[in-house]
Amino acid sequence: MDDDSPYARWEQRTEIPLFLASLLFIGAYAARVLDVSMASGWQRLCEFTMLALWLLFAADYLVRRHLSGQRFLRFARTHFLHTVVVILPLLRPLRIVPLYDAIQHRQGEPRLSLHARVIAYASLSTLLLGFTGALAVYQQERGAPGATMLSFGDAVWWAAATLSTVGYGDITPVTTGGRAIATVMMAGGLALLGAVTGSFSSWLLQIFSSESDRRPPES
Amino acid sequence: MDDDSPYARWEQRTEIPLFLASLLFIGAYAARVLDVSMASGWQRLCEFTMLALWLLFAADYLVRRHLSGQRFLRFARTHFLHTVVVILPLLRPLRIVPLYDAIQHRQGEPRLSLHARVIAYASLSTLLLGFTGALAVYQQERGAPGATMLSFGDAVWWAAATLSTVGYGDITPVTTGGRAIATVMMAGGLALLGAVTGSFSSWLLQIFSSESDRRPPES
Amino acid sequence: MDDDSPYARWEQRTEIPLFLASLLFIGAYAARVLDVSMASGWQRLCEFTMLALWLLFAADYLVRRHLSGQRFLRFARTHFLHTVVVILPLLRPLRIVPLYDAIQHRQGEPRLSLHARVIAYASLSTLLLGFTGALAVYQQERGAPGATMLSFGDAVWWAAATLSTVGYGDITPVTTGGRAIATVMMAGGLALLGAVTGSFSSWLLQIFSSESDRRPPES
Amino acid sequence: MDDDSPYARWEQRTEIPLFLASLLFIGAYAARVLDVSMASGWQRLCEFTMLALWLLFAADYLVRRHLSGQRFLRFARTHFLHTVVVILPLLRPLRIVPLYDAIQHRQGEPRLSLHARVIAYASLSTLLLGFTGALAVYQQERGAPGATMLSFGDAVWWAAATLSTVGYGDITPVTTGGRAIATVMMAGGLALLGAVTGSFSSWLLQIFSSESDRRPPES
Repeated sequence: MDDDSPYARWEQRTEIPLFLASLLFIGAYAARVLDVSMASGWQRLCEFTMLALWLLFAADYLVRRHLSGQRFLRFARTHFLHTVVVILPLLRPLRIVPLYDAIQHRQGEPRLSLHARVIAYASLSTLLLGFTGALAVYQQERGAPGATMLSFGDAVWWAAATLSTVGYGDITPVTTGGRAIATVMMAGGLALLGAVTGSFSSWLLQIFSSESDRRPPES
Repeated sequence: MDDDSPYARWEQRTEIPLFLASLLFIGAYAARVLDVSMASGWQRLCEFTMLALWLLFAADYLVRRHLSGQRFLRFARTHFLHTVVVILPLLRPLRIVPLYDAIQHRQGEPRLSLHARVIAYASLSTLLLGFTGALAVYQQERGAPGATMLSFGDAVWWAAATLSTVGYGDITPVTTGGRAIATVMMAGGLALLGAVTGSFSSWLLQIFSSESDRRPPES
Repeated sequence: MDDDSPYARWEQRTEIPLFLASLLFIGAYAARVLDVSMASGWQRLCEFTMLALWLLFAADYLVRRHLSGQRFLRFARTHFLHTVVVILPLLRPLRIVPLYDAIQHRQGEPRLSLHARVIAYASLSTLLLGFTGALAVYQQERGAPGATMLSFGDAVWWAAATLSTVGYGDITPVTTGGRAIATVMMAGGLALLGAVTGSFSSWLLQIFSSESDRRPPES
Repeated sequence: MDDDSPYARWEQRTEIPLFLASLLFIGAYAARVLDVSMASGWQRLCEFTMLALWLLFAADYLVRRHLSGQRFLRFARTHFLHTVVVILPLLRPLRIVPLYDAIQHRQGEPRLSLHARVIAYASLSTLLLGFTGALAVYQQERGAPGATMLSFGDAVWWAAATLSTVGYGDITPVTTGGRAIATVMMAGGLALLGAVTGSFSSWLLQIFSSESDRRPPES
């Protein structure tokens, strides 16, 4: 019966369009950062698109707050991830879980096991965090004096080494802005990686236990 | 009925003033370390404040030992964290748990879930450890020959890379004192990060399980 | 009764020969990469062996798909690890679990405990990932301008520092191909290490609990 | 009744003397490695002491094998840690668990909780692994061309950065021997650290849960 509330109906209808909008947002941001020789008109278009999409996300947030009937601060706390992705729309695809549920719902297929879903979600989130983090740090570092991050390929390699906590240090951010974004990436990446490794470990234990049970002793 | 013992009443009355005193201690230490051009009189004031606050913390510790009625060594062992923060007052805000409980108690608000509280506590502790560790290492490294840590911003960036175990190595302590503090930070940071990632992983599994249950199959 | 299905009988008969074939594949690859002064004829032989073995693995995969009676995409998803090792035959020995089960089955020996088996499997997989990863990255890096990985010993040392997430950064890949392989190694290594440490932690807790129980109080 | 077997009695009588012998072994090794200006006679004495102690450990191992009544390979497998510390006597103090149990046994004191004991054991093992590893790597690196590890202090700092998986890379082993020992340290350190962080995380969750229960709601 919870599925018939106005909030749930709003969520079911808007989830997929908003997900596509968030991919467009990332695309516009990536084009703006990576294509340095872009004509000024296209640059304006990218920036305008990002602003329009951000207003759309903010409007969706306000509608949801209204439909939920909660006070503002309480809504912000109980919908913590939602609040974060309105402020940092680059991370909006992290809301992929309800989307995935929605798609599964329609197809009626057997769902993945709990551990496999946590692994899939955390892996996708790590990829997204790495890609958008590499973009954002590259934007800060480009042209900075003494920068070791000279191309977007370097930025992706740096992001991989950072999120896996390997941290070679052959490429590191040198600007204050780049380091601040990197610190947020470290915090988020560590939590997500912990979720991946923890779930993988549980999953492996489960596979090994079930294998023991399956194989009966020979008589 | 435990709440009516003299020990519990002492704790309830002194927790918040002592927490504020510990913030003042950190503030005085930060001012002493960071403001190198401070007039000699202000330097003396900072040092005097720190000494006075430390005596206050020691007095509180002795009063608690007396109220608990335990022998000294036994009290030191059963109140391990308390003993640590008397020796290293910079870490005193780690005792934020009872404070948080006290505040929640008064407001009567619904409490966060267990995992959320562990994550919040461990995250705050990591931030505090990073900030005070950066201050202490910076104090050791400043002016050392061959130092790569040239500003407090460098020290904070180094602390973030160390506590997340990324360890780029672009900035590293070179003095014996700095390396000793860094080793303590590594040990503490690893334990806290393990608590954050472990709890986050359990929490995510819990969210995913409850989501599976909530959504009934369509008929 | 599952053991009498055509699929299970095929698996029991082919597991050991295919495992030996995968070791031969790795041997041929290692010889091709490491022996730079190899005569052209031997080089051709190595490459031919690898191609023939890969065709063998692909044929085995198709036979299994047929015996399972599943559609292609479904088989690829339910036999995920199998699909991966057909595409990347260097990782084929990861299928060592069924082999180990088969050997244990014949000898009828008492099996290791669950945790010990997960630790053994994840450790062996980490070793294999490190060795084949070092080979593959070394092949990419050899002779690249500015490369710091000058010998296969360097590559093995780099692989150890990467899979343990220590990441000194004294030796790092500089080519795009080497960095791509390194990123895959980081992801796989983190998951495996999480499994090792998680299982070891549970195992230690189990040993300590059983030790407490074993020792009765003196009367 | 297990405590009255010849094996258990042998263990109870020899545990403490053998632990002291292992500390002497580490002391002799440390003196031999660190005191480069030691007279030749003292060097011989250190080496002779180490050889004699190693023979003592080997004899103890053989006696235990005899008392257990097991075949050699089976004994080596069921007493895995024991077999390791006979081959690498520097790690012998890892057998501190039975010693600790023995001491607790005599004093009859209340024992630490399970998690606290795992944390204490894994922390002590990490310290021991770090100290002996730093000694062994320093012995390999001293005087090697291009070495960055110039003093034993550098070796200890390197060991701390390695065992915590921070891995700055300001100091790294360059000899094959040093790198081989470092790889073993990484593997051992990761397993132990996983045990520390996992137990600490469980312990923190336990403290927080019990705190919730203790504080009754106000009426």
